[in-house]
Amino acid sequence: MRISIERAQLLRAVSQAQSVVERRNTIPILGNVLIEAEEADVTFRATDLDIEVIDKAAAQVGRAGSTTVSAVTLHEIVRKLPDGALVTLNADPSTDIVTVEAGRSQFQLKTLPKEDFPVMPASQYSSNFSVKAEVLRRLFDKSKFAISTEETRYYLNGVYMHVAESEEGRVLRCVATDGHRLARIDAELPAGAEEMPGVIVPRKTVGELRKLLDDDEADIAVSVSETKVRFATPDVTLTSKVIDGTFPDYTRVIPANNPKRLEVDAKDFARAVDRVATVSSERSRAVKLSMDEDRLILSVNAPDSGAAEEELAVAYGDEKLEIGFNAKYLLEIASQVDRENAVFMFNSSGDPTLMREGSDTSAVYVVMPMRV
Amino acid sequence: MRISIERAQLLRAVSQAQSVVERRNTIPILGNVLIEAEEADVTFRATDLDIEVIDKAAAQVGRAGSTTVSAVTLHEIVRKLPDGALVTLNADPSTDIVTVEAGRSQFQLKTLPKEDFPVMPASQYSSNFSVKAEVLRRLFDKSKFAISTEETRYYLNGVYMHVAESEEGRVLRCVATDGHRLARIDAELPAGAEEMPGVIVPRKTVGELRKLLDDDEADIAVSVSETKVRFATPDVTLTSKVIDGTFPDYTRVIPANNPKRLEVDAKDFARAVDRVATVSSERSRAVKLSMDEDRLILSVNAPDSGAAEEELAVAYGDEKLEIGFNAKYLLEIASQVDRENAVFMFNSSGDPTLMREGSDTSAVYVVMPMRV
Repeated sequence: MRISIERAQLLRAVSQAQSVVERRNTIPILGNVLIEAEEADVTFRATDLDIEVIDKAAAQVGRAGSTTVSAVTLHEIVRKLPDGALVTLNADPSTDIVTVEAGRSQFQLKTLPKEDFPVMPASQYSSNFSVKAEVLRRLFDKSKFAISTEETRYYLNGVYMHVAESEEGRVLRCVATDGHRLARIDAELPAGAEEMPGVIVPRKTVGELRKLLDDDEADIAVSVSETKVRFATPDVTLTSKVIDGTFPDYTRVIPANNPKRLEVDAKDFARAVDRVATVSSERSRAVKLSMDEDRLILSVNAPDSGAAEEELAVAYGDEKLEIGFNAKYLLEIASQVDRENAVFMFNSSGDPTLMREGSDTSAVYVVMPMRV
Repeated sequence: MRISIERAQLLRAVSQAQSVVERRNTIPILGNVLIEAEEADVTFRATDLDIEVIDKAAAQVGRAGSTTVSAVTLHEIVRKLPDGALVTLNADPSTDIVTVEAGRSQFQLKTLPKEDFPVMPASQYSSNFSVKAEVLRRLFDKSKFAISTEETRYYLNGVYMHVAESEEGRVLRCVATDGHRLARIDAELPAGAEEMPGVIVPRKTVGELRKLLDDDEADIAVSVSETKVRFATPDVTLTSKVIDGTFPDYTRVIPANNPKRLEVDAKDFARAVDRVATVSSERSRAVKLSMDEDRLILSVNAPDSGAAEEELAVAYGDEKLEIGFNAKYLLEIASQVDRENAVFMFNSSGDPTLMREGSDTSAVYVVMPMRV
């Protein structure tokens, strides 16, 4: 194999590859990127056995062929090459070395045989549809903070992407929860997605997917089966196993009739929560919200170190209410609000609270209270 | 005590305080800042028993008095208050609480008695002189990278500031070394420093001092005794114990007559070293320099992962030479060069190598070779 490729193209491909590869060096080939050159096309393939990313890049192919080399080392080298450099990769099939050349730099890297590289078997997908990058980005960006990190509840370690019935009709929906808070984000149902099976997209896949979604207007081709999900742009194809488990029935958790409505400026609210939480050094800091007649008092009481109190002018017309929350959860939820005010709907100090952005019902959040 | 103070003023004072205080909570009072208000002056004092920083800030003093409160918590609170806020601190001597108020935010923080706060005893200083901030900054910034982190050789855990005899006459000199490399930086001897005892300024003090040196033209008042050093601006006074030990005779380490001269573009050289080092995953990566007739080849050979080679056009007219160095040390030394080319002076592949910036002899560096 002999290819010449622009540094920027190569950097993009190997940077995605190195973030997918397995970091624990138990199976060396899983740390490698498979480079395959055929005519004018070069593909870079990396996998950790659960996720596979294939990056296609334009290159001059001097001699077709393929090899595998450490994704992390190749990435480090390419990153440090000067901008605009033309990089030549040359793998002599009679040795286990690939030579990387650019200007007066020359690197020789150990390769592993292409035959050992685990290529993910092709799959049948029952649903294929297309979504704008900005739509997918919103669905995942606004839900991923609520993904559970508890490995025992593995079925919560991802975002549940599925088709659901909303007040507005059928929607493409992403839900994540860790049992303490929940995010439910809806988008218009794309043509072709109607019969899509619900899938739990793992946390790492959500992170890798994010890199494909920077161009608002790009169309992302999505394919879904019971066991796999695939996201593709013209250059990059990301395929991932989905979590083999059943996402719990989240609809029962979302309060439908919480009567007490509080409307706050989301930014002011977040800053105030952040400030009052300062006085407590505990990991799960409880913030108390006391509401009464267009007035909200946020307070924290930490017997060891002190106390804090902050008052906000808000819209609240219901009866007096006191309710406590984990400060971190409140902050994360409030920071999901992009433009509008945050609207909280409470029932009692012991019941789950609902939050949404202004009057928009396509993104709702639930947070469990804490005893204060 | 009751004071009102602008957030920016307070932030500056407590931010310096929180970086000096003891982080390990073994003696609670050492985590606190002592705030003393008298007439229009408020001082903030923090110490870890080795370093003491006193910050004077303008404030409206409503009621004179003093208190101590957690420097880290107060810093966190002030940092999160809105820009431009006026902050009121109110300590009621009959309670152990200080109230911090700004706008609609109110914090109550536990205090500890002022009497428990360990104020550093005043000292006699045998030398007092004044230096421009930019001069001190250069002396310490260019030497501190070579400070040893080995606690067993505690006398190398700082920068040795002393008066020395150079080719240009008597100078104020800073030297640091960890046994593998050494930095020797000279500046004009300030009036009044002639009789200064040599002192080893500890690493943490060097870091704290740096914060006083941002304004090039500021005059820093320096006072030195056998056991302490003090650096002062009109607002901030930093006092530190010096390391109680003897700095080794470094002059014997600095080669005076290395004959082989290599001149390189420092930036190109550093980038090339960085790139070739990529192929080795070892912590102490050895880079080999091979010089011959205006040509420098940098190479790394890592049997497990591969090899790298890079060629640089340089000025070198001496006989062929091969010599190896720790890549990290080479990088750190090359990055000290501000404008000019880096000039290396070699003797043999087993001898210490000298590096300086162009023809400037006021900053010289020594690095020990490695067998390659």
